[in-house]
Amino acid sequence: MHELRKDPIVGRWVIIAPDRITRPVNLHEVEPPLNDEFDPFLEGNEEATPPEILAYRNPGTRPNGPGWRVRVVPNKFPALKVEGELLKRGDGMYDKTTGIGAHEVIIECPHRETNLSRLSVDNIREVLWVYRDRLVDLRRDPRLIHGLIFKNKGALAGASLDHSHSQLIVSPIVPITIQEELEGAEAFYRYRGRSIFSDMIQQELATDSRVVLDSPNFLVICPFASRFPFETWILPKQHSSHFENVTRPAIEELGVVLKQTLRKLEFALDDPPYNFVIHTAPFDRQELPHFLWHIELFPRLTRVAGFEWGSGFYINPVPPENAAKFLRETSGE
Amino acid sequence: MHELRKDPIVGRWVIIAPDRITRPVNLHEVEPPLNDEFDPFLEGNEEATPPEILAYRNPGTRPNGPGWRVRVVPNKFPALKVEGELLKRGDGMYDKTTGIGAHEVIIECPHRETNLSRLSVDNIREVLWVYRDRLVDLRRDPRLIHGLIFKNKGALAGASLDHSHSQLIVSPIVPITIQEELEGAEAFYRYRGRSIFSDMIQQELATDSRVVLDSPNFLVICPFASRFPFETWILPKQHSSHFENVTRPAIEELGVVLKQTLRKLEFALDDPPYNFVIHTAPFDRQELPHFLWHIELFPRLTRVAGFEWGSGFYINPVPPENAAKFLRETSGE
Repeated sequence: MHELRKDPIVGRWVIIAPDRITRPVNLHEVEPPLNDEFDPFLEGNEEATPPEILAYRNPGTRPNGPGWRVRVVPNKFPALKVEGELLKRGDGMYDKTTGIGAHEVIIECPHRETNLSRLSVDNIREVLWVYRDRLVDLRRDPRLIHGLIFKNKGALAGASLDHSHSQLIVSPIVPITIQEELEGAEAFYRYRGRSIFSDMIQQELATDSRVVLDSPNFLVICPFASRFPFETWILPKQHSSHFENVTRPAIEELGVVLKQTLRKLEFALDDPPYNFVIHTAPFDRQELPHFLWHIELFPRLTRVAGFEWGSGFYINPVPPENAAKFLRETSGE
Repeated sequence: MHELRKDPIVGRWVIIAPDRITRPVNLHEVEPPLNDEFDPFLEGNEEATPPEILAYRNPGTRPNGPGWRVRVVPNKFPALKVEGELLKRGDGMYDKTTGIGAHEVIIECPHRETNLSRLSVDNIREVLWVYRDRLVDLRRDPRLIHGLIFKNKGALAGASLDHSHSQLIVSPIVPITIQEELEGAEAFYRYRGRSIFSDMIQQELATDSRVVLDSPNFLVICPFASRFPFETWILPKQHSSHFENVTRPAIEELGVVLKQTLRKLEFALDDPPYNFVIHTAPFDRQELPHFLWHIELFPRLTRVAGFEWGSGFYINPVPPENAAKFLRETSGE
């Protein structure tokens, strides 16, 4: 059984998910080759994945057959599994929990396309609706308190298949990055009575130098303290702490904004590997006045030195103002 | 001028260090090739580096000539520079600071050797002494409050030269990873009146399943909540919060322990790229009862998914108990 373990010093949870590695030396291929031969995510290959959890389907088509537009299946090698009891236990000074949760794959299109940005806006909107639908469904399980939606694009960003897809991990704990944001944002709110995200949006709009894209309901920026070259955040202008409460007009617009942002990054950086993560508030909190859901996007470029995640000390050779200017001037059409 | 910027939400400082990148697409080679032709760190090539800051030399030899055993030079592309005034400024809601500090390279041996583990124990001890000497020297500068010593081994771990070397970044801020450890350890101390590190050492020795190596003054473990496969920590058993206060007997022993630990990792994982980081308390604090300096070592293996540093949610496919057992049984001789 997989296990969640908490670092006693900093409170960071880690999923210990033993897979079928028999000898440690097998770990040592650093770049997993993307499988070019068989595409288990292709329409018609539905039997190559576990049975679907959700699919947006054309009328008259049947589950686990062709005729879908976006499809969700369990991860074949899940980090967390939904079966079993949530047992929180101590082990001397340490805390652990059974690895209860969900780990799903969102297959973003039925045909073989590697880039989300090349899908139609309508297709991207359906992907966003699927994200929302899965969170709404999974949050009903009282054992689960947080949903992390993320995308690994390209082998160097951690993808093991090149057919465009994203992932969802729903867990009984809050990932430390989200926890730290919640705490920082709450401290600011207590002190000033305002959302730090609103202040940030106001200042970024006034300064303008880090703005990549400004649409009626979304602001895309390279953040002031960007850890990585071309780090890019998509912030909704309407306050909302939970992504799953997103409105229909917001999704309509986000489809366009996400597509444009990705295309800008891809043109500017020659189709880089990248990750994005949707930061959203925990299920067990109601609407929070201090937290804003948002998307953080990181192209995976060179010169991301190795020690940075070990030390928390990031060195970024590209000032976000330069990155934003470049992205602003790069066509996203 | 380089700049330090603070993320207003989580308080993480980032070094914005523009280098001579003219077009962002230049960022896009992910694996910098290690230069095989010319070795600027080789004895005899001293003119290829900036003038030395410190060198352990054989009697009768002259600075910036041959005859050294371990040599420290400024980084040619420093993230922080020692010249200039420390200016802390606000920019609306944001905080920034001039990029004052030091960024040095410790050349670990005069001959061309890629693996620190293959140097003699005496040589490794001298490397450790150099670490200590540089911290002692730099901590006298009241503008600087923290010293981060780290090593990138192999291109995939961020090294741009293969001649064995480590680096030192001394800065006017505390990296967030160290800051979080300090806070977590202090909270534990306030609550229990004990050092969390002492409790950890006791429990690890009692449990034994995560112990890699147990020597009189050091304990080497794969930590309970390891983020990465074969993550390995070296903990001193004698309480001390600042690495630079290390005793001579401790360095004598650490030379052996570090060599053995590295050799075990290299045998077990077939000479992997790796990083290590020395975690040590800030200069501006006296000896802290709650914090213990230590070394964190991370081999860079595959399946380190991309989204993990974006989300703070780590998935580790190798239970630390399995990693420790494997390392324990691997000869480090």
